[in-house]
Amino acid sequence: MYLPKDFKKTDMSAVSALIEAAPLATLVTHTAHGLRADHIPVMMIKDMLIGHIALANDLHQILDANQDVLAVFSGENAYISPNWYPSKADTHAVVPTWNYEVVHVHGRISFSHDRKSKLAVVGLLTKVLETRTNGDAAWRMADMPADFMEEKLNGIVAFDIHPTRILGKSKLSQNKSDADRLGAAQALEPSLIAAQMKTSPQT
Amino acid sequence: MYLPKDFKKTDMSAVSALIEAAPLATLVTHTAHGLRADHIPVMMIKDMLIGHIALANDLHQILDANQDVLAVFSGENAYISPNWYPSKADTHAVVPTWNYEVVHVHGRISFSHDRKSKLAVVGLLTKVLETRTNGDAAWRMADMPADFMEEKLNGIVAFDIHPTRILGKSKLSQNKSDADRLGAAQALEPSLIAAQMKTSPQT
Repeated sequence: MYLPKDFKKTDMSAVSALIEAAPLATLVTHTAHGLRADHIPVMMIKDMLIGHIALANDLHQILDANQDVLAVFSGENAYISPNWYPSKADTHAVVPTWNYEVVHVHGRISFSHDRKSKLAVVGLLTKVLETRTNGDAAWRMADMPADFMEEKLNGIVAFDIHPTRILGKSKLSQNKSDADRLGAAQALEPSLIAAQMKTSPQT
Repeated sequence: MYLPKDFKKTDMSAVSALIEAAPLATLVTHTAHGLRADHIPVMMIKDMLIGHIALANDLHQILDANQDVLAVFSGENAYISPNWYPSKADTHAVVPTWNYEVVHVHGRISFSHDRKSKLAVVGLLTKVLETRTNGDAAWRMADMPADFMEEKLNGIVAFDIHPTRILGKSKLSQNKSDADRLGAAQALEPSLIAAQMKTSPQT
């Protein structure tokens, strides 16, 4: 990824927070048939990414053991109009751009077919996502009939990705003056990316 | 991409609409250093994707001429809780999932350094994005001082991608009963993905 230093996200807790906020990974692989991407919710736990795919998804059959993959996580993004920069009125030396936040986790993937690994992955994902979504009314795996749960576990494959390199990019107008950055943020209010731009000082 | 037939997006106008609505492509490439992804706004015009990158972005130097790339466009996505399915109360035979819409454009990329190509790309992108954002108050390239515009054009490289294969996936609970799909949509209201789910009948 093209990553000028102004936009480098170096704080690992900010990297983890983006993954947690936007868990649907674009899982990029290079296969005998060329480039491929699958879209899979994953979570980071103990410095590893974990997730599962359908058994019917041939990804677990066509990748080599410990093959290098790239998981892309996408935060907010927005078009930035030059109209929003106060400096436009002075110099007109402004151009459009696009702001966004992403995390790239490069790593080695391995698949697990054993019941214990699969149960651990769906259990963790369910707990985190249900608690976030439904609080005290969280759906629990124990709500399912036992035979139905076994059938569902038989239909998936677990995986983990051991990171070899993690890149974070926060392109939030940090290369602009405070006035221009805050002007653009204001035009995008109310939104999460506006809030993120407001707290991303010039670098 | 794992693409069960229930979720295949076959209508090319819906594919184009997703690209237009979510132009920030994840441009995936396979390089001598492994997998890579860059995030670049692009548009489809005359069945081709066009865009530009910074001259300082080495992507245009490290790819072969007409190299195969993959541009991923991501629409809305949302976690779907089993709590939202009316059938949960009857059978409890339900599990969480994730809904999303994506388009994958596989194709061959070629870069252009000539002023005419660069001007055409930034002109088209600016016109479409500014009109959408600012209507009658759209910023125009002619607003820039001429020497500043030349400096900016000197700092970019244009590209086009000739598609060889386009895949669209709309995972919007079309594999569920109408009641469960509409129940989940209701829980996500008001949102774009809720509206999309409501108009995606069972397959």
